[in-house]
Amino acid sequence: MKQLRAAVVGATGYTGAELVRILHAHPNAHVALVVGNSRAGQPASAALPSVRGALDRDVVAFDADHVASEADLAFCALPHGASAGIVSSLRDRGLPVFDLSADFRLRDLDVYRKWYGDHLAEARFGQATYGLPELYREALRSADLVAVPGCYPTATLLGLVPLVREGLIDTSGIIVDAKSGVSGAGRGLSEITHFTECAEGLRAYKVGRNHRHIPEIEQELGVVNGKPVRITFTPHLVPMSRGLLATSYTTMRGEVTAERCTEAAKALYADSPSVVVIEPGKAPDTLWARGSNRAFVSYAVDPECGRIIVQAAIDNLVKGASGQAVQCMNIRFGLEEGAGIDMPGHWP
Amino acid sequence: MKQLRAAVVGATGYTGAELVRILHAHPNAHVALVVGNSRAGQPASAALPSVRGALDRDVVAFDADHVASEADLAFCALPHGASAGIVSSLRDRGLPVFDLSADFRLRDLDVYRKWYGDHLAEARFGQATYGLPELYREALRSADLVAVPGCYPTATLLGLVPLVREGLIDTSGIIVDAKSGVSGAGRGLSEITHFTECAEGLRAYKVGRNHRHIPEIEQELGVVNGKPVRITFTPHLVPMSRGLLATSYTTMRGEVTAERCTEAAKALYADSPSVVVIEPGKAPDTLWARGSNRAFVSYAVDPECGRIIVQAAIDNLVKGASGQAVQCMNIRFGLEEGAGIDMPGHWP
Amino acid sequence: MKQLRAAVVGATGYTGAELVRILHAHPNAHVALVVGNSRAGQPASAALPSVRGALDRDVVAFDADHVASEADLAFCALPHGASAGIVSSLRDRGLPVFDLSADFRLRDLDVYRKWYGDHLAEARFGQATYGLPELYREALRSADLVAVPGCYPTATLLGLVPLVREGLIDTSGIIVDAKSGVSGAGRGLSEITHFTECAEGLRAYKVGRNHRHIPEIEQELGVVNGKPVRITFTPHLVPMSRGLLATSYTTMRGEVTAERCTEAAKALYADSPSVVVIEPGKAPDTLWARGSNRAFVSYAVDPECGRIIVQAAIDNLVKGASGQAVQCMNIRFGLEEGAGIDMPGHWP
Amino acid sequence: MKQLRAAVVGATGYTGAELVRILHAHPNAHVALVVGNSRAGQPASAALPSVRGALDRDVVAFDADHVASEADLAFCALPHGASAGIVSSLRDRGLPVFDLSADFRLRDLDVYRKWYGDHLAEARFGQATYGLPELYREALRSADLVAVPGCYPTATLLGLVPLVREGLIDTSGIIVDAKSGVSGAGRGLSEITHFTECAEGLRAYKVGRNHRHIPEIEQELGVVNGKPVRITFTPHLVPMSRGLLATSYTTMRGEVTAERCTEAAKALYADSPSVVVIEPGKAPDTLWARGSNRAFVSYAVDPECGRIIVQAAIDNLVKGASGQAVQCMNIRFGLEEGAGIDMPGHWP
Repeated sequence: MKQLRAAVVGATGYTGAELVRILHAHPNAHVALVVGNSRAGQPASAALPSVRGALDRDVVAFDADHVASEADLAFCALPHGASAGIVSSLRDRGLPVFDLSADFRLRDLDVYRKWYGDHLAEARFGQATYGLPELYREALRSADLVAVPGCYPTATLLGLVPLVREGLIDTSGIIVDAKSGVSGAGRGLSEITHFTECAEGLRAYKVGRNHRHIPEIEQELGVVNGKPVRITFTPHLVPMSRGLLATSYTTMRGEVTAERCTEAAKALYADSPSVVVIEPGKAPDTLWARGSNRAFVSYAVDPECGRIIVQAAIDNLVKGASGQAVQCMNIRFGLEEGAGIDMPGHWP
Repeated sequence: MKQLRAAVVGATGYTGAELVRILHAHPNAHVALVVGNSRAGQPASAALPSVRGALDRDVVAFDADHVASEADLAFCALPHGASAGIVSSLRDRGLPVFDLSADFRLRDLDVYRKWYGDHLAEARFGQATYGLPELYREALRSADLVAVPGCYPTATLLGLVPLVREGLIDTSGIIVDAKSGVSGAGRGLSEITHFTECAEGLRAYKVGRNHRHIPEIEQELGVVNGKPVRITFTPHLVPMSRGLLATSYTTMRGEVTAERCTEAAKALYADSPSVVVIEPGKAPDTLWARGSNRAFVSYAVDPECGRIIVQAAIDNLVKGASGQAVQCMNIRFGLEEGAGIDMPGHWP
Repeated sequence: MKQLRAAVVGATGYTGAELVRILHAHPNAHVALVVGNSRAGQPASAALPSVRGALDRDVVAFDADHVASEADLAFCALPHGASAGIVSSLRDRGLPVFDLSADFRLRDLDVYRKWYGDHLAEARFGQATYGLPELYREALRSADLVAVPGCYPTATLLGLVPLVREGLIDTSGIIVDAKSGVSGAGRGLSEITHFTECAEGLRAYKVGRNHRHIPEIEQELGVVNGKPVRITFTPHLVPMSRGLLATSYTTMRGEVTAERCTEAAKALYADSPSVVVIEPGKAPDTLWARGSNRAFVSYAVDPECGRIIVQAAIDNLVKGASGQAVQCMNIRFGLEEGAGIDMPGHWP
Repeated sequence: MKQLRAAVVGATGYTGAELVRILHAHPNAHVALVVGNSRAGQPASAALPSVRGALDRDVVAFDADHVASEADLAFCALPHGASAGIVSSLRDRGLPVFDLSADFRLRDLDVYRKWYGDHLAEARFGQATYGLPELYREALRSADLVAVPGCYPTATLLGLVPLVREGLIDTSGIIVDAKSGVSGAGRGLSEITHFTECAEGLRAYKVGRNHRHIPEIEQELGVVNGKPVRITFTPHLVPMSRGLLATSYTTMRGEVTAERCTEAAKALYADSPSVVVIEPGKAPDTLWARGSNRAFVSYAVDPECGRIIVQAAIDNLVKGASGQAVQCMNIRFGLEEGAGIDMPGHWP
């Protein structure tokens, strides 16, 4: 089979680096272009120290024609806002694009504007397929613009969707307490990610109705629910490099057991190689997912309070970003869904 | 002023070690006896490496008469279940006792039995003063048996009590998502606290209605509320040595602002040197509290969902255990409430 | 090509787990048997949580005949001392064995006895090929008993051998200051690897002439040197899960530049896919190697003191153990040397 | 006794923050001024989050007259180069100054210029007393300008000086392999101290004859030795916030035992409350020193190679910076040497 040639645009941030790592070992695809304006002209190994000796190639500046001629598809790992224009220019040239930014994830332009500001490619807004394969697998087979969700929505949705879908919970006030490793904050320097002010401490941020991923999660839960869903969402920064755990609290409708929830999830994910549903009584550990595209999902109940506690653990850079993008590519190009992303996590 | 002579019983675990450290620098008290059966006869510095060169004293086996003759008061830092008998034997000899175990915290013996099993000193059950100075300061001035609360109840209660007290929240279904540093699991060896299976990962445990601190938190919230309160409580283990963050989710009664919650807390803690109420818009970081007896409390709201999000950050071994025990001793013996525990945290 | 069937004996420790992970993604081999006496009968995923959902197979007790019938080769990831007998029983049945223990690494039985005690398969002592492919690639092509070196010898030798081989250094008194991540201490519980007594601290151990890897490193340097070499070796335990850095201090013979040392290493490792020689002026970071079979080697000089400082960074569980074992298997069975172990590290 | 009024100049970096923390609990001194130009006008608690609720005072801009009128002494915690002028202006006004920068540590202006560039107060160069109390206690009693050494020289010298002083080692080629926690790199943002590129990895820096502390260590060893000493020095960055371990390798003169070295150190440090000499066979752990002004020193030998291995563990921000500065202040003002800095470390 012919190898797919992939361009990685924005390759020198953490999700870009992870795309390069995963594609390096992919049996049916390889990195044809390492694109990054801020480090153009440098060897890839100067920007991404772990590929030293593995990828002998320079970082190049972005040029849409060049990308379209050298690659069969592009991954865009650019910041929100900066991505829309680049993505659009590649789509203009017919290239299938897997966008890791938030620019094409929302379906309502007003909501986008409220949370992100102006959109730089409004003509294409709303055209993307949401790149969560467990929900949109069929649509992804022919999608040319894929909006790959990030770590918080991926973990939260994988846990909650089976319950919403089967009507097991009250959808009027879900609480999501999410905890992320520090790589989720990206490669940009800041006090909050300075080692000494971050290690050995734990803190929430953007508490209240303040985090940009809230409308995206509510949108996708609403699609499943058939009517609006509201969540209270609190992200926390945990002193570890990778890993994301979403602990969600829901109110059960009638009497629901953890076993019933587990069945609902197993049914929904029966054909999904990247989701592992854990038996009740066990809680997932983000360490199990480290370096892996697997999500671990589990359910427990507090019967006296009528609560279902939902947990989902992923590696924020893999299933929460780059691995999921490759999973979408696999589906789009008719490859095995798990090709190149099938490894268990690095434990310990 | 005459120095108080303190016995630390169970000195070779982490809360015992912290008591020894704090009392070493206390202006009005000192460690008169280091008691620990499993390491009796060893130098204290063999059991507690950080006191090497600072505390030249052997660990001695427990003997109630010896303790009563050599000490003016005792701290008991023993496991639940093992503490009751020791505490009782010291009380028989008239010694004021500050017990860090759960053995005397509950008020209902049936509840104790359900969660902990038999109680070994039933005659004294229910006689203790709950050692949370911010709620029981007056009673502590004359208390001879103090049941010092641990890290989860301390952080949870300090955040929630001001809201319950002023009727700002619905008390029928509070959610507490709590995150603890690993020292909270104690000095005993286990896979879950083995460095490699614990670092770089995050996980919940005892999910559902399974953690022993649930009845204690419900009891104390119920006292403030004047009627029963139910909580759903999920503890998590975070890869850091010290620190505890309780993030609680409550439903507001009527329209409540974060400023209103902050005022309620400032009013309740006006005379409390160990509680710092943060302005709305800031979230507390456990790193601020590291090594300190201070608790940092803050409030935020999600108005669309009608939620108040409550956060409280402490050092689990200090305000969540040994520092709080010393705070109780200070009050009981008429010392400055902050004596010996007034230092800011070790930051960074 | 027919898939190789590999048995992993001692699969439930960390090097066993890593073998399972690597072989899961190997294009030409798979795990045919997961052998481990202490957890026999359990699902593999109970012992190795990261393979949950990826390896549906039970752990089985060791039975030499069973292994020989079901597998084409065996990896033995057992403790020193326990390995010799098992290895011997598999060799009796003709199976090629890759042994990760120290039992067959030494060439002098008296030295073995001095450091390890009795050897349980003396008849086979001295028959193994030392499994450092960069030095013994040719011999490995036909080796049926391979003694795979561990993390300290691998990193130390890869850095020092090029200098010894070309006579650039005085071999009478080399100093090796080595730093290991905690997974190097294995899965067994101990105070020193208890999270809270290990995180946020750094310490040496077995200081002086006390570590068992000293004779092994001296043996292999002596082979290259043609006469005995003595080293002073100090291992340190660093609060990270994986990674090993060996910093060696040598006295230059005549005037030697860092460039000269770098050339010597590049020449020796020209055909070695797993060694990356860094340019002078850069120091390797163990984080670059995390999860990878690559070793990063660099040289610097202190001309005023006449010293050459040698550094080598690896992942102790991969190039320092399981990845290297697979590299030996690849060579022995005529596969690409990098098959299944060619991925760049997980960075960050 | 009248409380000493201390100004902390450069209070918003990590050593400044630690000075504020230590002085807050000092029985005979308090912080009279928090000086910091970059954050002038902010509350101290905005710059130093851990003092929130403990220090209600604004950061003020530097004004030499103001400092001289409000304080009895000043600590300067400014970067190298920036400190000299400030220190000089305070000395002009008669204020005793404890300078934590390198600006007055060296005795040879040419050496200063070579490693640091121009000196901004040459007239005062060479006038300072080196602030290592264990070597200069008598001189410090009347010193008005104290150059407090940093973490690398403090740990290295405390370990090596007893051996040099008694002629137990060859001083022609000492090797110092030093490992520092990340707070030693300061509060300034950089990739190397970004959490994700720093955690879970280990690396050396400035390998070869490149680190500015080399001439300072050589100078002080030379004073003790009576003739020049040369060292090879390699600093490493370890993924922990605090802690510094210096492992030094020396060649013994004649036959020397670890016990003999231990005696030499015990004799030298008999009156030093901040140095703990460990018995041979034990290695010090930086965790024992965390948050404490204690240094832990130990000796081991490799008799076959004729080496003495010297270890010293400190908290880089306390004994390696701010605690040591307060120790110097205590001596200078006739206080107990351990006043305010006598606490054991925060363990665990």
